[in-house]
Amino acid sequence: MINTLIRITYDGTNYSGFQIQANAPTIQRELERALGVIYKQPLRVTGAGRTDSGVHARGQAANYMAPFRIVSEQLAHAINAALPPDIVITDACEVPEDFHARFDARRKTYSYTVDCAPFPQVLRRLYSLQLPDPLNLSEMRSAASLFTGTQDFKAFQAAGGSVTETSRTIYRVELNEDPAEQLLRIHYEGSGFLFRMVRLMTGTLIRVGKGSLTASDLEAALAGLNPAAVGPPVPAHGLCLESVGYDLPK
Amino acid sequence: MINTLIRITYDGTNYSGFQIQANAPTIQRELERALGVIYKQPLRVTGAGRTDSGVHARGQAANYMAPFRIVSEQLAHAINAALPPDIVITDACEVPEDFHARFDARRKTYSYTVDCAPFPQVLRRLYSLQLPDPLNLSEMRSAASLFTGTQDFKAFQAAGGSVTETSRTIYRVELNEDPAEQLLRIHYEGSGFLFRMVRLMTGTLIRVGKGSLTASDLEAALAGLNPAAVGPPVPAHGLCLESVGYDLPK
Repeated sequence: MINTLIRITYDGTNYSGFQIQANAPTIQRELERALGVIYKQPLRVTGAGRTDSGVHARGQAANYMAPFRIVSEQLAHAINAALPPDIVITDACEVPEDFHARFDARRKTYSYTVDCAPFPQVLRRLYSLQLPDPLNLSEMRSAASLFTGTQDFKAFQAAGGSVTETSRTIYRVELNEDPAEQLLRIHYEGSGFLFRMVRLMTGTLIRVGKGSLTASDLEAALAGLNPAAVGPPVPAHGLCLESVGYDLPK
Repeated sequence: MINTLIRITYDGTNYSGFQIQANAPTIQRELERALGVIYKQPLRVTGAGRTDSGVHARGQAANYMAPFRIVSEQLAHAINAALPPDIVITDACEVPEDFHARFDARRKTYSYTVDCAPFPQVLRRLYSLQLPDPLNLSEMRSAASLFTGTQDFKAFQAAGGSVTETSRTIYRVELNEDPAEQLLRIHYEGSGFLFRMVRLMTGTLIRVGKGSLTASDLEAALAGLNPAAVGPPVPAHGLCLESVGYDLPK
């Protein structure tokens, strides 16, 4: 069997998330359907992680065991021809037989996009949260720095998460303004993220930006002492899984 | 009657263009429906110009005669509440009674967006033409300069255009690269444009960029001597009506 790692970008607007489920359109279902067309047999795809309904990806990753080898350069294009236009494989390569897209993921980066224009920008409404209120970015940056490092993020996990080990390392939370486009992008890079953690962190940072929460509220929240300071989670459509990092042999 | 000028942005993806037609969703139909809700009577909207099916707008303009005055600051928000999320009024103001959104339009600007990334960028697929082929931008810029000035653009009008006077003044055709985003934006500014003229000019410029057409082919095309050098029109979804300019009393 040929273990194959694929990189995937998708527009999550019309999908009920990544993971396969009965009677709902999902990214995994479309991938498995397309692979079935290419390999003429049912194949199972393992994603690096779930993304929620409506969340987008520029750099999702997944692997599958293929029954035979297809030249890498042609493989991505062949699968894309069998995929709908809102899901695209950008890379496909052979990996060691014991590689696992979820267990071997070492780093993930996400972005959350806030549209600060006074009127909704309809051409980006599907990919950003419309929020014309003024935000104090310097307060948000101070608060964001409290998220970095290795900590227990149990307080920043939504109900429904399945993991019990809730310690994660956050390498970077960065706020980038684009004044010309009136956009704010928040970038998160970490060893991994709990269920809805990025959306909960972003919702909390936005409350700090609006002045309704302070950095010390956030410290107490991280210590599990102030659950009311957590969230609410921002809507899914501003979130994008940018990349998944692996330590792969060259 | 209160003559009212509105500025409109819309995502053309799900519409059969601006102009009202039987049994098809159009921007004008949605605007008239929303105004009917606000003013409790049927009103007719006059657009600055049609946009084709699938074309977007950041700055379309239109006017309508209102039976009574609504305070300008509240008006746009009130109409927006009655509009679908992919159509937004960004401004509404009273204008002289003889103002006409089409006849009084003095300048229009359009942009055409080309996505040069090697793989389709799904998050912008609805708003750009995916074209990974290398383009010679310096040749394209030389050719683009031939479009500027006052000329007869009859050769750059698609069948189905209704006007007989085909002279137009093009003030500017500008190519802007965004290497980080792997985007090329072509901006057009002119006194007005014939039916499908921007899409025909863009299709012609792209052939120049690919090396299959020269600047002198284009000169002959403008002189009406080389119809084979015109177009083909690029797809609608990369096109956006950016603004419509009027000479309004302050």
